[in-house]
Amino acid sequence: MDEVTFAVLGTGGIGRRALEVSQHKAELTSVAACDRHGTAIDFDGLDVDELLAATEGNIDNEVATDGGGSTTLDSEGGVKQHGEDRGVIASEQARPSEDPIQDVIDRGDGIDAVLLALPNYEHDFIPRVADRFLEGGYSGVLIDVLKRSRVIDMLDERSAAFEDAGITFICGAGATPGLLTGAAALAAQSFVEVTDVDIWWGVGLKSGYEDNRGTVREDIAHLPDYDIETARNLSDEEIEAIIDDRDGVIEFEDMEHADDVLLERAGVCDAEDVTVGGILDVQSDEKPTTTTVRVTGRTFDGETATNTFQLGDETSMEANVNGPALGYLKAGARRNRAGEYGVFGPAELMPGF
Amino acid sequence: MDEVTFAVLGTGGIGRRALEVSQHKAELTSVAACDRHGTAIDFDGLDVDELLAATEGNIDNEVATDGGGSTTLDSEGGVKQHGEDRGVIASEQARPSEDPIQDVIDRGDGIDAVLLALPNYEHDFIPRVADRFLEGGYSGVLIDVLKRSRVIDMLDERSAAFEDAGITFICGAGATPGLLTGAAALAAQSFVEVTDVDIWWGVGLKSGYEDNRGTVREDIAHLPDYDIETARNLSDEEIEAIIDDRDGVIEFEDMEHADDVLLERAGVCDAEDVTVGGILDVQSDEKPTTTTVRVTGRTFDGETATNTFQLGDETSMEANVNGPALGYLKAGARRNRAGEYGVFGPAELMPGF
Repeated sequence: MDEVTFAVLGTGGIGRRALEVSQHKAELTSVAACDRHGTAIDFDGLDVDELLAATEGNIDNEVATDGGGSTTLDSEGGVKQHGEDRGVIASEQARPSEDPIQDVIDRGDGIDAVLLALPNYEHDFIPRVADRFLEGGYSGVLIDVLKRSRVIDMLDERSAAFEDAGITFICGAGATPGLLTGAAALAAQSFVEVTDVDIWWGVGLKSGYEDNRGTVREDIAHLPDYDIETARNLSDEEIEAIIDDRDGVIEFEDMEHADDVLLERAGVCDAEDVTVGGILDVQSDEKPTTTTVRVTGRTFDGETATNTFQLGDETSMEANVNGPALGYLKAGARRNRAGEYGVFGPAELMPGF
Repeated sequence: MDEVTFAVLGTGGIGRRALEVSQHKAELTSVAACDRHGTAIDFDGLDVDELLAATEGNIDNEVATDGGGSTTLDSEGGVKQHGEDRGVIASEQARPSEDPIQDVIDRGDGIDAVLLALPNYEHDFIPRVADRFLEGGYSGVLIDVLKRSRVIDMLDERSAAFEDAGITFICGAGATPGLLTGAAALAAQSFVEVTDVDIWWGVGLKSGYEDNRGTVREDIAHLPDYDIETARNLSDEEIEAIIDDRDGVIEFEDMEHADDVLLERAGVCDAEDVTVGGILDVQSDEKPTTTTVRVTGRTFDGETATNTFQLGDETSMEANVNGPALGYLKAGARRNRAGEYGVFGPAELMPGF
């Protein structure tokens, strides 16, 4: 497979680590990174070490989505700053910009894939970013690592537009749904009918807590008394209180997680046969439970069995998000070059069921 | 994805069960099946139930490869017969043929994929069949479920010819290498470097022994004192003796199995980092050990961990060969339609590493 060039929108936890992991991938070249303050573009390949070092502790997840500061968090309260410049422009490779996304779109001809490493403060945030790429005439891969079912519905509404534009949109390509629904789709291959998919994750996030506030906030939205809107409006103090109430360990059951719709899209099973839960521990880096996918089905010869996929406890959430995201990005680039456009979940990139 | 039509060459154990499993797959239509006696072709879809019922106990793995009976086993000793007609022509859908493979090639325009469900009596048997498809002007998917590394080298020598012809050749797409190297490629996604892949399989084959003599023979070729040539020349009695010597349970260590070269091709690890072994029990249907893939690697953040994929003990070898074979067949058809030609291992059809 030929070289794949990619851009990262958002240089928060996920964006930064995607850049870092991409350095280990022979066929991937990072050529652009931006946050709402500015853009770094270099078609010879970014100097990732410089960019990460310069922006250490100076990160910003957010990218302006409409050419200016009118995003949800325009208070910029989300930027950790200890240099002179905010966010990505602390790097010598970046320039300030009024419209960083447009910078990427304008150079889109040289960018095979764009990783949308943006927190989903509003549930239509990623879809609106996709609209900008559609309007800007981009054709290539767009890929996110979101978890929410409803975002996929919103992307699906744009499916015809993506097809017309030549965009291959890969949604939910992180650890879960991404890696784990991919594993479920593969584990399903032993069966002619899948009756249950049980996805159970464990995350220990002590040292990564600061870099993953957006993820924790999104997880809290899955608790029974919250939703994505109420979670978005929580102050940092309120989030701390929710965590403290649970002694730092939050258990989730029956989450509204896109795994179900993504496995149904791939024809593996009905969405209702998929159960997602897990345990988040923000006071330890040890995983509170082993991340496990169990796929139960019926074989053509009438047996019922369960195939199992487990992640080693030493693999961090970050490792399990960013490796698969880049793996699916490469798979998406291959699909895109082959002329396959529209919206795809990770399980649809696996062998057919 | 659109409908995929496929043919099966060989109506022995694998071919018959591939037809059976395909009935559970909405997007797959079996349109042709042949053995060396004849050919059944119906572009509206074969009546699989009739074909399987009519040929029950009347099976023949073998297909003439050069227009006549001059194959290795031209004694026809391999045919189990209890009807009037031999092999596939016991079905009312089949007609006798002097050259069944040519029948399939001649109708190749309507056949998206051809599953080569042939035992590999000679190590160049599958490559020679591929040559016939090349000579016959076929363009589409060819797929096998072989295990041997050297066959892949022979197919690789034909890579340019496949590319010119528009053939996408998927090799080793059964349980192992197929399903298990696919799982290894996916499990690798957590890591930036894979240091060890350990593939360990268990097969209980009591009731399936009769239908799987070819597979058992091939497995025996992996024992220290045998190779593919000496195993091919063993009489059935000699094979029984080898099995009896071991009380029906044969353990394999460090097998020459294509998993290693297929994972190296996909860029997951070096071939030498892959170990394959397993236990075959022909006196029980219970698996003597749980089939397990362990992928050990280093994460971008410096941890070492092992991700694990396990097949439920109740999944038969047949279930784990035929489901994946058809899954990869569909993936291959997708690649073929997208213009990707040449030789691919299953792991290369997974998200890029």
